[in-house]
Amino acid sequence: MKMSQSFVKTLRQASSEETTKNGALLTRAGYIHKEMAGIYDFLPLGLKVLENIKSIIREELNQIGCEELLMSTLQNPEPWEKTGRFSNQQVDIWFKTELSSGGELGLAPTHEEPITALMKSYVKSYKDLPISAYQFQTKFRNEKRAKSGILRGREFLMKDLYSFHTTPEELESYYDKIMKVYQSIFNRVGIGDITFPCFASGGIFSKYSHEFQTLLDVGEDTVYYNQDKSIVLNKEVYTEEVLNDLGVKPEELQTANAAEVGNIFKLQTKFTDPLDLKFSDENNVEKVVYMGCYGIGVSRLMGVIAEVYADDKGLVWPESIAPFKYHLIAIGDEGIKTANELYRKNPESFLYDNREGLRVGEKFADADLIGLPQRIVISDKTLAEKSVEITDRKTGKSDLQLLSDFS
Amino acid sequence: MKMSQSFVKTLRQASSEETTKNGALLTRAGYIHKEMAGIYDFLPLGLKVLENIKSIIREELNQIGCEELLMSTLQNPEPWEKTGRFSNQQVDIWFKTELSSGGELGLAPTHEEPITALMKSYVKSYKDLPISAYQFQTKFRNEKRAKSGILRGREFLMKDLYSFHTTPEELESYYDKIMKVYQSIFNRVGIGDITFPCFASGGIFSKYSHEFQTLLDVGEDTVYYNQDKSIVLNKEVYTEEVLNDLGVKPEELQTANAAEVGNIFKLQTKFTDPLDLKFSDENNVEKVVYMGCYGIGVSRLMGVIAEVYADDKGLVWPESIAPFKYHLIAIGDEGIKTANELYRKNPESFLYDNREGLRVGEKFADADLIGLPQRIVISDKTLAEKSVEITDRKTGKSDLQLLSDFS
Repeated sequence: MKMSQSFVKTLRQASSEETTKNGALLTRAGYIHKEMAGIYDFLPLGLKVLENIKSIIREELNQIGCEELLMSTLQNPEPWEKTGRFSNQQVDIWFKTELSSGGELGLAPTHEEPITALMKSYVKSYKDLPISAYQFQTKFRNEKRAKSGILRGREFLMKDLYSFHTTPEELESYYDKIMKVYQSIFNRVGIGDITFPCFASGGIFSKYSHEFQTLLDVGEDTVYYNQDKSIVLNKEVYTEEVLNDLGVKPEELQTANAAEVGNIFKLQTKFTDPLDLKFSDENNVEKVVYMGCYGIGVSRLMGVIAEVYADDKGLVWPESIAPFKYHLIAIGDEGIKTANELYRKNPESFLYDNREGLRVGEKFADADLIGLPQRIVISDKTLAEKSVEITDRKTGKSDLQLLSDFS
Repeated sequence: MKMSQSFVKTLRQASSEETTKNGALLTRAGYIHKEMAGIYDFLPLGLKVLENIKSIIREELNQIGCEELLMSTLQNPEPWEKTGRFSNQQVDIWFKTELSSGGELGLAPTHEEPITALMKSYVKSYKDLPISAYQFQTKFRNEKRAKSGILRGREFLMKDLYSFHTTPEELESYYDKIMKVYQSIFNRVGIGDITFPCFASGGIFSKYSHEFQTLLDVGEDTVYYNQDKSIVLNKEVYTEEVLNDLGVKPEELQTANAAEVGNIFKLQTKFTDPLDLKFSDENNVEKVVYMGCYGIGVSRLMGVIAEVYADDKGLVWPESIAPFKYHLIAIGDEGIKTANELYRKNPESFLYDNREGLRVGEKFADADLIGLPQRIVISDKTLAEKSVEITDRKTGKSDLQLLSDFS
């Protein structure tokens, strides 16, 4: 992408309302634009990061046979009334709206009810199970406050996966499989070493569920963890009984802030029962389907990664999700000629700062703020060595690399 | 995709409410699932078609330097109030909702206002222009009736592109460029020969705008056209004055139903003026930005293509947007062994009907209903010729093709 022909632009400052690093830096660096608190647009660079995260998740889920679909935002109250969750008393973050032809609709905060209802058309027999389906879909939650940039949105992008099984044992083993897949996803996007499965409340159907919590100063959750982090638990389940269950003593635990980037939940028959999702087993006996659900907050994940890696100069993206690998800057006529040529051959790899009338120092500052993994500078000096200068954004280390390596 | 491990399934019948071919066939063939009138889920096959259409549009737009972004669904009333369009009197298809912290929001039916407001952060000087940005975003329109399958949705997928210019001449020439790009898009998705630029009302800022209308019996618009279809006009502008303008006589025109698959519009300063989007020219004089907008109804387009190509056996997809190229069916042990091998090598190309316990006739009927471009049958008979039998879905013609051609 050529910066001269793009509205990818850095801003001097973000609104003073952006009190978190992710909100302020992503705004200043031209990744997002705030419409209102908790409601953001994703500009070209930001959309590329989102799409890169989606690709990693999609690849991991498709590999284990999950199928992608796209469900509606507007929600018919019917299935939600069967589980009691259309009520604002039960679920206090609904956005509701009215059909002009009459009747109330909701904006989906999650999709357990409609996907369970949908599956009634497609699940009849044990031969139809197990199946699992996921989507990347905008979710809506009517939060009273939303002050953490894209860490907590009123409108946000989520990956939600639902699985359907004949037995609780099959659900159990699928759940374990997803635990591993999630860890692989968090590894690949660059936060594997600070993201842990965390015991959380399991609701009324299982003692615990698992959240995936990333240790993060501005995270809204509090977790307790032991030294090797083999045991991490959410403050909400920090009781004597739970510590006994986990075989850990209070003095062995430390505490930290964390951001929930994913959660996985054995729903058992909580939704399939009231929505009457049944299958016929081998003996033609009707049984209720077992269900699990597994979420990843995709836009929140982007915000978390921004927070984790940012330094005092700006954003620092892991290569796996960076919008481009290289930030290209040319100095002098020969530098520009060579940079044009390099860009022409492989435009997908470069954000090319070909803007005229800026000092090199300004371009360097923008490159640091935007945070692509490697900055490439081409000048008379580097060309004398038939090379370009590559600077790693994370370490700041520079090296010459042969120009011929890029062709 | 293996049908045995998927919830891609055909249904005996669609709901009797599905009175259009697209609604009924896409439902029966497992592409879509209706939540309510005008509100559909896209199942795995349907999502693939949508994504294929998106890829074609994206490729064409990126080629001419358009940048992709993603704006929010929830709409701050502020910019809409400046153009008067937040009022339900002015725009009668709003879905509105309430923030729990107070204040009314809208669900975006289109995005002229917010993108114009957004550009105020990124457009300062003539050097920043022209720019153009587009998105694929769900739109919401509170239609009183929605009975045409995915041809008219209350929630639907749209590609909307906006361009910003220093002069009306520059806008004019960009508009002409988009005319050509749109024709190329409609060619590539398979409806180029029955889709025409059509004179429509230009509102108060230009005499005409252009719609792209696809001739279609169930289309909701009526168009008039001359013999070589060099002149096509919407019934809404069929007046003596307009016929004079176009130099055509009533007796030279025929009439037909048509579906609007795209529209392009020179907005001039209709939105940039009230929203105060200005730039400084070469002499540092502030001027109002000129603007154009260009839409394609992506999910409607999918419905239109389904309608256009369907026959009495089911759907017929053009190869460019088909969810898979081949529908693979094996007969007998050797056939299954070979089909497994073929599938393993290139799973992306095949929908593999490996379901057990179905008669071949049932599989053939499902293949016809699902409508992939080519059906491949592998049996002892074809293997004796080291071949597979390929049947073209559109023509029904069968041929043997060497198995080695596929490896």
